[in-house]
This record gives sequence, C-alpha cells and structure tokens, in this order.
Amino acid sequence: MSIQTVRTVADLRAVVGRWRQAGETVGLVPTMGALHDGHLALVHRARADCARVVVSLFVNPKQFNQANDLAQYPRDEDADRAKLDAASADILFAPAADQMYPDGFSTAVAVGGLTSSMEGIARPGHFGGVATVVSKLLLQTLPDRAYFGEKDYQQLVVVRRMTVDLDIPSEIVGIETVRESDGLAMASRNVHLTPEQRAVAPTLHAELSQAASEAAQGGDCGEICAAALARLKQAGFDPIDYFEIRDAETLDAVTRVRRPARVFVAATLGATRLIDNVAVKP
Amino acid sequence: MSIQTVRTVADLRAVVGRWRQAGETVGLVPTMGALHDGHLALVHRARADCARVVVSLFVNPKQFNQANDLAQYPRDEDADRAKLDAASADILFAPAADQMYPDGFSTAVAVGGLTSSMEGIARPGHFGGVATVVSKLLLQTLPDRAYFGEKDYQQLVVVRRMTVDLDIPSEIVGIETVRESDGLAMASRNVHLTPEQRAVAPTLHAELSQAASEAAQGGDCGEICAAALARLKQAGFDPIDYFEIRDAETLDAVTRVRRPARVFVAATLGATRLIDNVAVKP
Repeated sequence: MSIQTVRTVADLRAVVGRWRQAGETVGLVPTMGALHDGHLALVHRARADCARVVVSLFVNPKQFNQANDLAQYPRDEDADRAKLDAASADILFAPAADQMYPDGFSTAVAVGGLTSSMEGIARPGHFGGVATVVSKLLLQTLPDRAYFGEKDYQQLVVVRRMTVDLDIPSEIVGIETVRESDGLAMASRNVHLTPEQRAVAPTLHAELSQAASEAAQGGDCGEICAAALARLKQAGFDPIDYFEIRDAETLDAVTRVRRPARVFVAATLGATRLIDNVAVKP
Repeated sequence: MSIQTVRTVADLRAVVGRWRQAGETVGLVPTMGALHDGHLALVHRARADCARVVVSLFVNPKQFNQANDLAQYPRDEDADRAKLDAASADILFAPAADQMYPDGFSTAVAVGGLTSSMEGIARPGHFGGVATVVSKLLLQTLPDRAYFGEKDYQQLVVVRRMTVDLDIPSEIVGIETVRESDGLAMASRNVHLTPEQRAVAPTLHAELSQAASEAAQGGDCGEICAAALARLKQAGFDPIDYFEIRDAETLDAVTRVRRPARVFVAATLGATRLIDNVAVKP
C-alpha cells in the first residue's frame, strides 16, 4: 500500500510543504469516511486535476445534531484506506477529535442566509459545524482545490460562500452525484436501510426527476412539490422534512423556474434519513 | 516615497506571491489608520522580524457597534502613508469596503468564552466584527506573523484564540502599549479629547498601575477595583464600563492574583471612550 496515513496537522503540513516546494498542486477531498463510489468520484477528479491528493477522514461531532446519528455513523478506516490506495490518493489525513478540537477550542464559523432553509432548519447547528470543520481542513491543508459532492448541494453552496467570504485561497469544486443503477444517490447511511426500505428508496430520485421535468416545462413549483410529497408519503417516507424547488445559486424559494434551479428532498425511511437533489434546467 | 499602495486582494496576493517565491518572510500589521507611535511600534517590530511588511488600513464597519463612533473615527490616509513610508513598510493595503464585504457576503467568525466579558459586554457585536475581519486579513496576506498591540489586550487574546482554532498558519505577536510621557496610552480616539479632558486622562493609567501594584502584593481584587473605580468617577470619568482584574490568559475573573493577571479599564471622558490595561506580576 503506497498511501500514507497522517494523524496530526503538523505532519500534514510537513508533507504538503514538501510538495509545495517541489511546485506541486494539491487537491483535498474532505470526507467522514464510510467511503462509497460517490466519494471515489471526488478522489478521481482530484487525481485528474492535481499533482497530489489528500483525503481527510474525520467524523465531525460538531455537525451532528443527534447523538445517536453520530454514534451509529458507519466507520471502517481500514476499508476506506484500501479504497483510497486503489484510487491513488497520496495521503489519508485521519486526525483524532483532540487534534481538531483541543481543550479550549472556542471559535465558530457561521454562514447566514443560505443556511436558513432546508437542512439549516431540519438540523439545527449542522451548517455551523460544517463551516467550522471545513474552514479548518482547508486551512490545515491549503489546497489549490477542494472537492464536494452535489448530493449535499446546500452544503456545497454554503462551503463555497464561506471560502469566498473568508478569502480562503482554495477553489471549491462541486461533483455530480453518483447513483446506484436504480437512481438512489450513494450515501454512507444507505447501509442502514432494510431490504424492504432499499426497494422503496429509489422513489426519492424518481420523484425528484419528475418534479424537475415538470418545473422545467413551466409548472407551478408549489403544486409540483405538494403532489410529489403526497406520493412519497404514500410510498412510506415519514417524516418528509421538505420537498422544495429553489434557486441553484441563492437557494431562494422559486414559484416558477426561470433560471437554474434545483429540486431538494429530505425524507426518512424507517430510521434512515435520506437527502437528495437534482437540477432543473429551464 | 517607496511604499506601495494596494487596493485589491488580487493585487496584494500577486505581490506577496512574488515575495514568497523569493523565500522572503512576511509580517502583517492590521490597523484602522489614524496611525500613532503605538502603531509604528508594531511596524518597527515587524520590520525587525520579517523581510517584508504589509500594513493594512481598513476602518472595519462590522466592529463598530455605534454608527457615530464609526462616522467620527479619524481618517487621514495620506498622513498614514507618509508615516509608514518613513517606517520602511513595503505595502499599505487599503481596500475599499466592497473589497472586504462584497454583495452577498454572509459569513461570520465568532469566538466564545473570551468575548463574554469587558468589551464583549460593553460593545455587542464588536469581537465578531474583529474576528471576521482579522481572519480575512490573515487569509488574504497569509503572513508568517501578525502584530497586535497589548492596549487592546482582550482583542489580542481573542485573535490569538481564533488563529489557533481555525488553523490559520500565522503567529500572533503582542506588542507592549506605547504611552505618552504622562502615562496615557496612545490611541487614535485621543484626538477627540479637549485640553481639560486630556489633562485628566492620565489618571486612568495611574489607577491601573496602583491597582496592579496592590494586587501583586496580595490585596483583594474586588476591593482594589471598587476603590479605583470610585476615584475615577470622582475625577470625572462617566460612565466607567468596567475596572477589573482578570487572568492574563483565560480572562477569567480573579479574586486574588496567583498567576499572571491584568487590570483592565474602559471609561468615558466627555464623549470619548478610553480603554487601557496593565500587567499584574504576582
């Protein structure tokens, strides 16, 4: 195995510093582990774009608003390392919690506006935790580019805003969602689905796609979403936190689509909360 | 004049990038202009420590909690530039407000704990504005070291905490307060004092020094501060926001001094609010 595992910020900076002295570009892929093909698509793109690739693995307690979601989050560092080695990542940066948040840690980064809807409502404190940990990971690594999946589209927009606003000298690159053959977006939490739930789960993407198509044809977004939401409830999703069409850039609510928008959903099947979104191209 | 004035982040990064390629170290002195010998002490120290010195001049609206304090804040960029040229600074970075906070800006950096006393109470929102603008200035410049005066001691501690917590790769250096011959701490707002107020103003430092001496000898901090506060009121300071002895590192309240502490005061003379502090060495 040629991938190197790094546990401390000091060691990470030493390695990246040597790359920088050699004039090499650096890509960062922040993850919480439990890697699937969605993560690996980010790694492949970083690999294609940059001379060096760092993948971080840190299950960030600050972005979990429920203790049992954090406790049950799937973890398998050895399996993750093998996948990253196969994908030719250079460094697995897997810090312990006290490397990221030592005693006395008391700073928070918050993004307003973009976080006042959807996941920002459904998961209080989530985006503050995301913005704080991502700013740290970016400043620890100082990559040329950092890669985020469009599956967490609101997160992507929030991270991009934070990076621009704080003048962090990295480009944030969004990568299209990777899906199972039946349309279900790949997600670490999918392992929690029972076979019965797994069979129902692709309905989420089917409804997103139908709503996107209707909205692109000029339909009323409120009506489209209400109908989709009713059908998802019928299919067994409960609760459904939101099914909404919003502007792709500002995340403002949209009544009729006139510029690039997205359809967003968050819904729970049994004990597993799933989120997904697709583009609406007017 | 050999100092160069830079107005945009892109231009600043271009200049600093050339210095970095030449292997030169960079010092940053963040200021709000209206430069006096206190600022110049920071520049001299940066000059001694670093190959290159950037001085930023930005009157940051986000850290003013009163509109008229912002409107009346003294400004004279040409005079500041001449002083910095004489002090051999390399760059005056003087961005317009829309360079720092373009449309859509929506990110805030906040430090908890250390900001829950003194200026954090007296000036709601002040430290959020400071932490946000300083994180931006540090990330725009990425200096090896940044210099802050001990006159704003709580700010110094907050900035140091924020820099460590966010993994900003710069060292924060605190520089001792520069005083007039009668003890008054140099401050841009001192120009607002009438001759009568100017004659009374040094009482502030005299009381701080006496309190520090009594506290160092083991006196009860509460009693020492209450007596000093009463005398300052007698001398004409009104209101006195606080006169307190706190731990030099944690800023926790102190009853009897057993480890390094500081005496802090904020008090208003006429329309001018003055702050100052001195060390207590047990």
